[in-house]
Amino acid sequence: MALRDEIITLAKKAKEAAGIMATLSSAVKDAALMEMAEALVREKEYLIRENEKDVKRANDSGLSKAMIDRLTLTPGRIEDMAKGIREVASLPDPVGRITSMWRRPNGLLVGRMRIPLGVIGIIYESRPNVTSDAAALCLKAGNAVILRGGSEAIHSNLAIVDVLKRVVVRHDLPEWAIQMVPVTEREAVYELLQLEELIDLIIPRGGEELIRAVVKESKIPVIKHYKGVCHVYVDEDADLEMAVRICLNAKVQRPGVCNAMETLLVHERVASVFLPLVSKELGEAGVKLRGCPKTRKIIPHVEEATEEDWYAEYLDLILAVRVVDSMEQALEHIALYGSNHTEAIVTMNYQRAQEFLTRVQSSTVLVNASTRFSDGFELGLGAEIGISTTKLHAYGPMGVEELTTTKFIVYGNGQIRT
Amino acid sequence: MALRDEIITLAKKAKEAAGIMATLSSAVKDAALMEMAEALVREKEYLIRENEKDVKRANDSGLSKAMIDRLTLTPGRIEDMAKGIREVASLPDPVGRITSMWRRPNGLLVGRMRIPLGVIGIIYESRPNVTSDAAALCLKAGNAVILRGGSEAIHSNLAIVDVLKRVVVRHDLPEWAIQMVPVTEREAVYELLQLEELIDLIIPRGGEELIRAVVKESKIPVIKHYKGVCHVYVDEDADLEMAVRICLNAKVQRPGVCNAMETLLVHERVASVFLPLVSKELGEAGVKLRGCPKTRKIIPHVEEATEEDWYAEYLDLILAVRVVDSMEQALEHIALYGSNHTEAIVTMNYQRAQEFLTRVQSSTVLVNASTRFSDGFELGLGAEIGISTTKLHAYGPMGVEELTTTKFIVYGNGQIRT
Repeated sequence: MALRDEIITLAKKAKEAAGIMATLSSAVKDAALMEMAEALVREKEYLIRENEKDVKRANDSGLSKAMIDRLTLTPGRIEDMAKGIREVASLPDPVGRITSMWRRPNGLLVGRMRIPLGVIGIIYESRPNVTSDAAALCLKAGNAVILRGGSEAIHSNLAIVDVLKRVVVRHDLPEWAIQMVPVTEREAVYELLQLEELIDLIIPRGGEELIRAVVKESKIPVIKHYKGVCHVYVDEDADLEMAVRICLNAKVQRPGVCNAMETLLVHERVASVFLPLVSKELGEAGVKLRGCPKTRKIIPHVEEATEEDWYAEYLDLILAVRVVDSMEQALEHIALYGSNHTEAIVTMNYQRAQEFLTRVQSSTVLVNASTRFSDGFELGLGAEIGISTTKLHAYGPMGVEELTTTKFIVYGNGQIRT
Repeated sequence: MALRDEIITLAKKAKEAAGIMATLSSAVKDAALMEMAEALVREKEYLIRENEKDVKRANDSGLSKAMIDRLTLTPGRIEDMAKGIREVASLPDPVGRITSMWRRPNGLLVGRMRIPLGVIGIIYESRPNVTSDAAALCLKAGNAVILRGGSEAIHSNLAIVDVLKRVVVRHDLPEWAIQMVPVTEREAVYELLQLEELIDLIIPRGGEELIRAVVKESKIPVIKHYKGVCHVYVDEDADLEMAVRICLNAKVQRPGVCNAMETLLVHERVASVFLPLVSKELGEAGVKLRGCPKTRKIIPHVEEATEEDWYAEYLDLILAVRVVDSMEQALEHIALYGSNHTEAIVTMNYQRAQEFLTRVQSSTVLVNASTRFSDGFELGLGAEIGISTTKLHAYGPMGVEELTTTKFIVYGNGQIRT
């Protein structure tokens, strides 16, 4: 069969499965998820054996140590995948929930009911745990899922899907509710992205390059974020000890992720006290600073920041620092250079805390807390399928609920329109 | 200035205006809207004078009578436009509303706050009232709007925007919150649809051809529906008198709109009684039926329905009729031929009413009420900016709230992630 037909067939099966998935009870879905967790642990050896093929090839082709580490499955990591699925199973089921209901003057009772989106395509790289995480979240929300992992993890991903699918058929779930694109050609992704009548949503997870390629080619709606240039603004009324603690956490706790701080904005009234404090701690943690001229007057040893630094997502132990003359200037900086991802203010001033929360239009805005909390699990969504910095449908971390939509339901007793 | 630069400049101004619009209080927005309504009525003569230029050209170029009627502004229609704006002003402001808030185990208080989408582009045809309706809705939700009406209404639309903009500058609204694309070249639309960094949402309103062209060219998310193939299913336990009333209303009250019934499905147990009843009433109203073989056994005078009839959106006094052997078969028919728009069941059976509501995945599903209620105003959204049959972001009639999104806001007291 030609590649194109193969992909269309796969998507048609997914759409058919989605029709059945949408009607399943929470009990049926959760029971299947719980057994999927069991099955992954039970099949640990098989999964590791298949994973070793990918790891070997990765070694042979000279992939970086970090990449190989992300690729490798260990018994501990498989336990974590199982734990993740169990957590998804334990979340409340959004499907069928009536989010609101009201009566119209003519007696019609109108409500909105959550329903699954339908078929969701996930396009991702390296980490095989995304396979089980994403599949579990999509199924929980009553969707069918088409997975397309990176070619470097194809054996691992196929093995994981194989284990999950065996559970699917043992339970009352439709056989094609979980599918993995079985070929590694890039054209398969292109073909997938054309099927707007069969697939409802595409979620790309990976580097900016992958995501831009998906957005460019897709006729299907895409939910994504390109990058996270997250700011912490230390206000003139900040508790400076708290500010140091938050900045250190936001930058250093895991510098390679999208919710790490990339630019620090400091009010000039506290800069001369705060900057030496924070730069000492950050320096000890290995962070290199790049400062504006005012910053460098206070801590002269730092490199000079260029215009590009304000746009940079370092994902590394580098931090851009700017002294601002007001919160107004901080807000302008964020509006100009920010990526709509996550921004935090550190302040004890009530008025400015509220104003910062209201005026910053990023997807997550925090007062006196680390930017690292911008994460589905940390915010209490239960689990995270991704983060969106486009405003349509979902903005910020996305959980199970964001894999559903609402329809209108209307109870009448013979009403007609006049 | 080249066309492309002109469009980019216009969109940049809109984005700047959106930043200010997002921070305005409801009082400021509503006062401006109320005065816009006044101003349209006050400038009635100017609007009609400009409209006459469009009408004259339409007459000269031989546009259909129906088209010219849709295009024409009368004092009454201008009063209606003003009334529409006043109604939008009186709606609750969604911006700033906290839709939910919860506390995390670490003490973080996490909430979701409604914020405007940003810049919205509306691409539409003929009816000049869309200009004021769409502008009012976008402004109410704190957005900036770029309007692009049909070339046949360019004088009318420019005059309406001119009147609205004079109010904008008299009030505290940013000058570029409402803009009309001032040129009629089709390329202007194409250029607009490329500006994904400046425009957040495109809403096309008009015929299927217009909408398909917009979807094809747009890099910006589009919310739309192609067509409405709406079904009424008359169950074996229907109150047949009520069913006749509902079918007549759904088909005849306004046959040219997307929420009119296009296919009638009748349970075989009631078909021999119901079909003669309903066909008599529909016939008297001028409706031509096209039936399946079982239908034609009961009412032999009707034309035979072909496969294409099940897919057809007639927008006319024509109705496809099929006799089904069960609700199951009706559900299958709807899933196969439906357009995800609106479907209704007529039944007194509790179980089947609930099942139909749950299992039909269309954007509006009704029990014992006319499909014609699938409308933002009728469902209680206050006003309608359009209807969506794609599931992302909004599904079904869209009101002011659908022109907003939510961001996460987080109140902390020094929390860091461990």
